[in-house]
Amino acid sequence: MIPKYHGAKLHNLPDEYLADILPVAKKLAIALELNIDSPEGDGYNILQNNGRIAHQVVDHVHFHLIPKRDEKSGLIVGWPAADADMGELSDLAKNLVAKLEQ
Amino acid sequence: MIPKYHGAKLHNLPDEYLADILPVAKKLAIALELNIDSPEGDGYNILQNNGRIAHQVVDHVHFHLIPKRDEKSGLIVGWPAADADMGELSDLAKNLVAKLEQ
Repeated sequence: MIPKYHGAKLHNLPDEYLADILPVAKKLAIALELNIDSPEGDGYNILQNNGRIAHQVVDHVHFHLIPKRDEKSGLIVGWPAADADMGELSDLAKNLVAKLEQ
Repeated sequence: MIPKYHGAKLHNLPDEYLADILPVAKKLAIALELNIDSPEGDGYNILQNNGRIAHQVVDHVHFHLIPKRDEKSGLIVGWPAADADMGELSDLAKNLVAKLEQ
């Protein structure tokens, strides 16, 4: 899915364009007629990448809707866990909440 | 990010709740103060999973915003390519467009 407004990354899009995207993703997920209404049925992933390092190849915001019908196809996700300092995480959370409330 | 409306998967949410989510993701991406304004700077990924097979663990729609500061941390993406039949793809595209226009 590709918004008509040109922005390279998600945070470059005005809110009104961002608001349009997920309702389209929903229509598309339904139109694909996957077996998606049970937890154990088919799945799908929504993925949107920002920056070369994060696998973005085309510098215009775009969303992937990736059907997941079996273990071997679709999106394979790796997410290496790291040890966290709970104090640092708590400070980060407070900091983010304060900024979101601005 | 977790919408207040309870739905297990993306397509279970009403459009008005879906519309709220990405503007919050944008605020959060900015609040994280990553170096995200050049293609070669830090990156971030938005990931939303639907169904066990697609890595969904908690049955309430939620979005991950995953900072990507280096190759070894953050989201690792695999996406096995498959041979495609261009005729089948063309039929699928026509079918989807017809459904989206309904």
